[in-house]
Amino acid sequence: CKTTIAMLADPAASKSVVFGNDGVLAGMRDGHAYIDSSTVDEHSGQRIGEALSSKGGRFLSAPVSGGWRDAAKGALDRKLYDEVTVEGGLLTHLGHRHWFVGDSPAHAARAKLMLQIMMGNIVGSLAETIAVTQAAGLDPSQVLDMLNSSAMGNALCAAKGKLMVEGKYDPNFQVYLQQKDLRLALHLADELGVSAPISAAANGQYIRARQLGLGNMDFAAVRKAYDADTGTAAGE
Amino acid sequence: CKTTIAMLADPAASKSVVFGNDGVLAGMRDGHAYIDSSTVDEHSGQRIGEALSSKGGRFLSAPVSGGWRDAAKGALDRKLYDEVTVEGGLLTHLGHRHWFVGDSPAHAARAKLMLQIMMGNIVGSLAETIAVTQAAGLDPSQVLDMLNSSAMGNALCAAKGKLMVEGKYDPNFQVYLQQKDLRLALHLADELGVSAPISAAANGQYIRARQLGLGNMDFAAVRKAYDADTGTAAGE
Amino acid sequence: CKTTIAMLADPAASKSVVFGNDGVLAGMRDGHAYIDSSTVDEHSGQRIGEALSSKGGRFLSAPVSGGWRDAAKGALDRKLYDEVTVEGGLLTHLGHRHWFVGDSPAHAARAKLMLQIMMGNIVGSLAETIAVTQAAGLDPSQVLDMLNSSAMGNALCAAKGKLMVEGKYDPNFQVYLQQKDLRLALHLADELGVSAPISAAANGQYIRARQLGLGNMDFAAVRKAYDADTGTAAGE
Amino acid sequence: CKTTIAMLADPAASKSVVFGNDGVLAGMRDGHAYIDSSTVDEHSGQRIGEALSSKGGRFLSAPVSGGWRDAAKGALDRKLYDEVTVEGGLLTHLGHRHWFVGDSPAHAARAKLMLQIMMGNIVGSLAETIAVTQAAGLDPSQVLDMLNSSAMGNALCAAKGKLMVEGKYDPNFQVYLQQKDLRLALHLADELGVSAPISAAANGQYIRARQLGLGNMDFAAVRKAYDADTGTAAGE
Repeated sequence: CKTTIAMLADPAASKSVVFGNDGVLAGMRDGHAYIDSSTVDEHSGQRIGEALSSKGGRFLSAPVSGGWRDAAKGALDRKLYDEVTVEGGLLTHLGHRHWFVGDSPAHAARAKLMLQIMMGNIVGSLAETIAVTQAAGLDPSQVLDMLNSSAMGNALCAAKGKLMVEGKYDPNFQVYLQQKDLRLALHLADELGVSAPISAAANGQYIRARQLGLGNMDFAAVRKAYDADTGTAAGE
Repeated sequence: CKTTIAMLADPAASKSVVFGNDGVLAGMRDGHAYIDSSTVDEHSGQRIGEALSSKGGRFLSAPVSGGWRDAAKGALDRKLYDEVTVEGGLLTHLGHRHWFVGDSPAHAARAKLMLQIMMGNIVGSLAETIAVTQAAGLDPSQVLDMLNSSAMGNALCAAKGKLMVEGKYDPNFQVYLQQKDLRLALHLADELGVSAPISAAANGQYIRARQLGLGNMDFAAVRKAYDADTGTAAGE
Repeated sequence: CKTTIAMLADPAASKSVVFGNDGVLAGMRDGHAYIDSSTVDEHSGQRIGEALSSKGGRFLSAPVSGGWRDAAKGALDRKLYDEVTVEGGLLTHLGHRHWFVGDSPAHAARAKLMLQIMMGNIVGSLAETIAVTQAAGLDPSQVLDMLNSSAMGNALCAAKGKLMVEGKYDPNFQVYLQQKDLRLALHLADELGVSAPISAAANGQYIRARQLGLGNMDFAAVRKAYDADTGTAAGE
Repeated sequence: CKTTIAMLADPAASKSVVFGNDGVLAGMRDGHAYIDSSTVDEHSGQRIGEALSSKGGRFLSAPVSGGWRDAAKGALDRKLYDEVTVEGGLLTHLGHRHWFVGDSPAHAARAKLMLQIMMGNIVGSLAETIAVTQAAGLDPSQVLDMLNSSAMGNALCAAKGKLMVEGKYDPNFQVYLQQKDLRLALHLADELGVSAPISAAANGQYIRARQLGLGNMDFAAVRKAYDADTGTAAGE
């Protein structure tokens, strides 16, 4: 087998599969390829890529975005990217759309963070809007319906808005994961010298949701950060 | 003519048409109806409604949302609302969807503000994301394409993202109007005792865009609030 | 009596004393003076000044700052200001220091707001610091002692820090009053086109304290906005 | 010599002095002591302490706060702390007040961060207040004088306010250092599950000052983050 593809839970798992005993690095042969579809931070991706290259291997960091859509984004090795994304290629089984974002695994990690900023801010804003809607004596389902009928309508707000109105937060993508992504994005923005006040404010509300004991709930539970009576939040 | 319908620029115009010499109030007859599709603040709407009612008139505050979609939302007089929104009714010429949001013009004003919070925050977040994207050495058009292909994709981000990438801000909906709506929404949230930190942060960026001389540009120009070199912003 | 001096609870009281039956305006004579040491918003002050001037009266808006220090700030009528602030003058009984801030009552109102921004932000920051201090396993009394020994030490932090450590919030200056001042300051900054993100964030925490039922407690109770368990806050 | 005392520029220097060839660790003897008065992050301090302990050495992390006051805070080794802080002891030459904050170098690092949160937020708030003051047509020197005469008066605001009014930012403590401390403090608060919105907003303004090319100016230059015309900021 000349190409190995992996999708793992976190950077630690990714590194262990590559660097562990009998791992991908140990078995790497000249010209063979390793594709990692996990979400890996930019430094881990860089380290994996360099190690595999040093043994003649080829590496593609191809994180997948969302749980609901199948969009993979590749990086590092343009030729490998092309091979695996053509019709019938390996990644066409993973996602219906692909983007080549740049010559380094860091590019893939950063591109994914950009989407995560938007996701955190949109769902945080939705929570804020629903909280004000309810305090204003309006019907949140109706406001959601208006939102979905407007130019702002999208699948994310429809799904997360429903959870907020029902107050049910069975996890699809957890509070602590969304907050981790905002933290990484703010760290990146800081490094680049860009002030990101909206994301910083949203991040604060996800931290507050964690403080309320909701870290493992769906990130729509950020809605709870707006309530006065949070006494029972942790027990949910 | 038993029903008059108006769509005016601002609350001052709305009040002048109603309360001015030979205005709507002066000509109001028992059972006649006045529908205002302007965006009117909740206190002006209340005042108009009470004045017309005192002369036996019927009033519907029916603000229209967005420039791009035709969604009208009615209020105050359920029966009048029903008459004008049935197939062939007056409001069916104005919008393809309608919502009856409550028994007072304040409800219509508040419902519209809820949509404006989301619009301001989403476009502010998009500006923030594009600014970080560009500082990170990624291609903003590609990131926008990913965003539009994701569960977050919507017509607003597609349109405003394009303006930001091109740096062209011919006004459709101006910075100063979006900021005014966020100000009103924050004022309402404050009155209701709900802290709204994400909207407050977004509001700050629109104020900054105004400070840069961009108040009359399209509100996508909030992107400029993230730049270091703003020396020429005002002159654009 | 040629000079009347008043110190009233709020703008409504100030206006009633001036414009009411047998009020200050009714009794105003050419050359007589009225000094208002209440805290009055800039529009009320302007209105009072113009009304008294129209009857030949002299007016000084001289709000007093703080509860703990006696600093009066005068405005409008430089000559009147000088007369009443010289040794033995009327205002020397009110405060040990005075500033002539400008030719309009609006100047006095604005100058006082500037101090209120600082007060709200410093006490909000202190609450934030104490909350992190406690979560970090440090002794808040010791950190306060360090703070007071540093170049940041001041009477405000010493007093409010003590309340926060003890969790006792008997009102000296209430949450709702401090939040009202931040709201007015943010409104002014917005009008002037200055984004004020730090004050906006602090304002959000005071709104949250109000939401927790602490509006009538001392504004040091903003410390509570940082707690997870707020179930009992309202009952205090 | 049984006790060595060091005050170095940053964690890297601290570690090099301890772990380098012929460094402190190499020369450590049973019962000898090493006192580090540098500002070291909590992980570096921990590592140094453990290494020295393993060779029978004693370690005290004793960071010094401020440039203007001489306050040292000790940690780790209560007995060593007592020996060096008694009258005539080594640390009495360094600072006039000392606090024993806890049994680990992490405690010393965290205690110092608490002071840095306050410093960043107070100076950021002062910049915001001065910016609004100037936009409001008030005299900033006069407002500073009022502030200094109030219960909020302290040496920090007097010194930094003067720099802001004069627009002279020769570095005493740089923008990039203050921002680094806020970043570390926000990271700590995040880790502890405490949302810190005021500090996050202040942090954003220091990042913006860095973006304007002011990273090496005194941190009072955060005042510039509030200006519309920043075209020349970088050139100062």
